Formats: sequence, structure tokens, C-alpha cells
Amino acid sequence: MSQQLIPGYTYGTHEVPRSPVTIEEFELLKQAVLFTDEDARHLQLSEKVLEDQVEAVLDVWYGFIGSLPQLLYYFTRPDGQADGAYLAAVRKRFAQWIRDTARANYDQSWLDYQYEIGLRHHRTGKNTTDHVNSVANIGFRYLFPLIFPVTITLKPFLAKKGHSAEVVEKMQQAWVKSLLLQITLWSQPYIKPGDF
Amino acid sequence: MSQQLIPGYTYGTHEVPRSPVTIEEFELLKQAVLFTDEDARHLQLSEKVLEDQVEAVLDVWYGFIGSLPQLLYYFTRPDGQADGAYLAAVRKRFAQWIRDTARANYDQSWLDYQYEIGLRHHRTGKNTTDHVNSVANIGFRYLFPLIFPVTITLKPFLAKKGHSAEVVEKMQQAWVKSLLLQITLWSQPYIKPGDF
Ligand code: HEM
Ligand code: HEM
Repeated sequence: MSQQLIPGYTYGTHEVPRSPVTIEEFELLKQAVLFTDEDARHLQLSEKVLEDQVEAVLDVWYGFIGSLPQLLYYFTRPDGQADGAYLAAVRKRFAQWIRDTARANYDQSWLDYQYEIGLRHHRTGKNTTDHVNSVANIGFRYLFPLIFPVTITLKPFLAKKGHSAEVVEKMQQAWVKSLLLQITLWSQPYIKPGDF
Repeated sequence: MSQQLIPGYTYGTHEVPRSPVTIEEFELLKQAVLFTDEDARHLQLSEKVLEDQVEAVLDVWYGFIGSLPQLLYYFTRPDGQADGAYLAAVRKRFAQWIRDTARANYDQSWLDYQYEIGLRHHRTGKNTTDHVNSVANIGFRYLFPLIFPVTITLKPFLAKKGHSAEVVEKMQQAWVKSLLLQITLWSQPYIKPGDF
């Protein structure tokens, strides 16, 4: 899917600010989470596995968010109703994010876009991409806990193309590591100056 | 092990400040990470499994921290050398933390002590418990990534008492969920006011 088809998806463009985390610092982070080339390869394998299942995965994830009022809240309008257009606009970028995560080309452009995604969850940038009138900031507290439901529900999809239990496990673990790294990067705008 | 035997372990005492997160808010967090009573039971099962393996587990975890300069750094003195007394003092509380996590009695006292642990990682309270002269603040960036090495290296220990692969998996997943919750609570002092 080309970028123009996804409104607000600015990955790789000049609209994306520079990440405050350098590639060298990111390498140190990867060591701490045990992320290796083997993980990158398993993510890339998962790209092929998930290719034709992206919408089905998103149905499950959106179903989970829709089932918990404390999460759906962040997609609501001032009248308290969920903003369907907002959910739909984000969903298109979410689909692309699945591909980008699996592609595992974690270079400077990718790092910069992680900063942008963090800004979009934080009050600095939330709602501006889709020009919506919604809750100002996503509470930091929910960012990391969501890693569990997201990665556990991914597992059956990873298992659908006949890979061994061991390979499925490795793909899933690579997703967990990548998410711990990504949400850490996304957290930067939430952290007090000097404490990150 | 009784509290008096662990210097600086103030769990359940009046020295511990009140958690800024209420029990009701914590319940909402548990839903987001899919933490249920079944997880509490699996943690409690892991308490018995780990009982006589705590020191062996800590050898592995301390070995990992010692192997990465970017992590060991937070235990160093102004001369750049690791502070052995600091490492040893923290290790005693770390052993007790394994038991407390596995006991899974996540009530108000526990919640309050999670806030205290957060303060001790953050510049607000670091170094004061052990009266050491070390780096002022643990970088937020490393807190969540450490969940992966900690929980993946726990698995062989969880498997050592003859439980089925399925039960071992469930114990490990309960640990992952508990850690996502705990490190989220510990992060509170790092977050800008109003953004948590
Ligand atoms: C594992 C944790 C999470 C992942 C992987 C994730 C993923 C994403 C992605 C890929 C986007 C689109 C980024 C883009 O614009 O290109 C996004 C945006 C968004 N997410 Fe998350 N998210 C997570 C946690 C949360 C939580 C806990 C909430 C709270 C309900 C949430 C609510 C939103 C909202 C409201 C947006 C739109 C923000 C805007 O106005 O631009 N996310 N998320
Ligand atoms: C999964 C993540 C982590 C867990 C489970 C963990 C666990 C603990 C525990 C249980 C304690 C003792 C708490 C008490 O005083 O009762 C502690 C203290 C400490 N931890 Fe962590 N920790 C984590 C991340 C980190 C990281 C990334 C570092 C950086 C090397 C770190 C360095 C320290 C230090 C220096 C102390 C002593 C703080 C003080 O009181 O001065 N921890 N940790």
C-alpha cells in the first residue's frame, strides 16, 4: 500500500521530526531487550505470515479496545461517544504499522517515525493528524500493558501458515521485544526532562 | 525471611508513602493487561516452584546486568567502578521482591510499595536507602526492556519442578503481566504531571 493512500502516514517524509534517541542509543536498548538479527529475521518471516491476515488481526485488536471503556475513552468525542471516523483513520495507519514492524528495517527514518507516533499518543500531537476533537492525551499507564493482549492475540495468526511451534514462538517473542522497544521510544514525550 | 533482616525493605511500614494510583485505577490496569485471578494463582504456584531457586535466579539476572555496561553503570560510584556493597544490598531486597511478586497479594500495601520502588529507581529516591554515592537516576528507557530478559530467563526455573509445559507457560505469562503492571506503576515518578 503506497503512502498517499494512507492519510496522515508521514513515515519517511520531511514532516517527521528527528528522534531525540540516536541510532547508537537504540543499539544499547536492543541489547537490554536481547533483540538480535535473529529477531529481525523472525519479524520478517512474520510479515509474509501476516500479509493476508492484517484486517483479521485488527478486528481482534479493535474488538479488545472497544470492549474496555477505559481504552475506548481515548477515541471519544466531547459528547462521550466513540468517534467512528477517528477509529477508522487510525486503523489504516495501524495496518501499515503491522507491516512496518514486521519489515524490521529499524533505521533512522523508522526511529524518527517512532518519535512521531509517541507524539501522537501524547498530548503534544494527539488528534492533530486526523483533525478530531477527542481526549487530549492517552494516559501513559495503558501504553505498556497493551503489549500483552496485542502480542498474545497475534500468536494464532502467526501459527496459521504451518510453521513449527518453535518458529511461531520465536516470531511472537520478536514481536514482544520490538513492542517493548517501540513503546519505550513512544514514551519519550511523556518523561520529565533528563529522566529518559 | 522477616523484614528486619533486609535493610531498607520497608514494605507494609509507615515509612512508605501512599500510592498516587488507587486500587480502583489498578483494577482498570489489570483489565488492560488481561490479568485475572488465574494469573494470581499461577504466580502463587510459582512461589513454591521458585522458593529454593531464588539465589540461582538472581545469579542469572545479576549476571545479565553485569554483562551490559549501560546497565551496570547505574550501580557505579563516581570513580566509575561498580559499588559492590550497593549491588549486595539491593540483591537482598530483590530476593524478597521475587517472593512478593509471586505471592500476588496486590493490595493497598503492595500498591504503596510499588510507588516506593518507583521512587527508588527515579532520582527522587535513588541511592538514599543504601546511603550510596551513585548515578542519580536510572534512565527510564531501560526499565521496560529489562522485562524480556528477566522473564525469559525465569522460564527454565519455572520448569524445574515437573509442571506441564502448559502450566509453565501460564506461570511465565503471569510474570510478564505482573511486570508490565509493576513497571508501569514504578514509572509514575518519571512522567510529566497529568500525563500518567
Ligand atoms: C501496545 C500498545 C500500542 C500500540 C502498538 C499502538 C499502536 C498505534 C498505532 C500504530 C497508531 C497509529 C500511528 C500513526 O499515526 O501512524 C496509534 C494511534 C493511536 N493509538 Fe495507539 N497503540 C498502543 C497503545 C494505545 C493505547 C493504550 C491507547 C488508548 C486507547 C491507544 C490509542 C490510540 C489513539 C487514540 C491513536 C490516534 C492518535 C492520534 O490522534 O494521532 N494506543 N496507535
Ligand atoms: C524488569 C525491570 C526491573 C526490575 C524487576 C527491577 C527490580 C528491582 C528491585 C526489586 C529493586 C529493589 C527494590 C527495593 O528497594 O525494595 C530494584 C532496585 C534497583 N534497581 Fe531495579 N529493576 C528493574 C529495572 C532496573 C534497571 C533497568 C536498572 C538499571 C541498571 C535497575 C537498577 C536498580 C538499582 C540501581 C536499584 C537500587 C535503587 C536504590 O534504591 O538506590 N533496575 N530493582
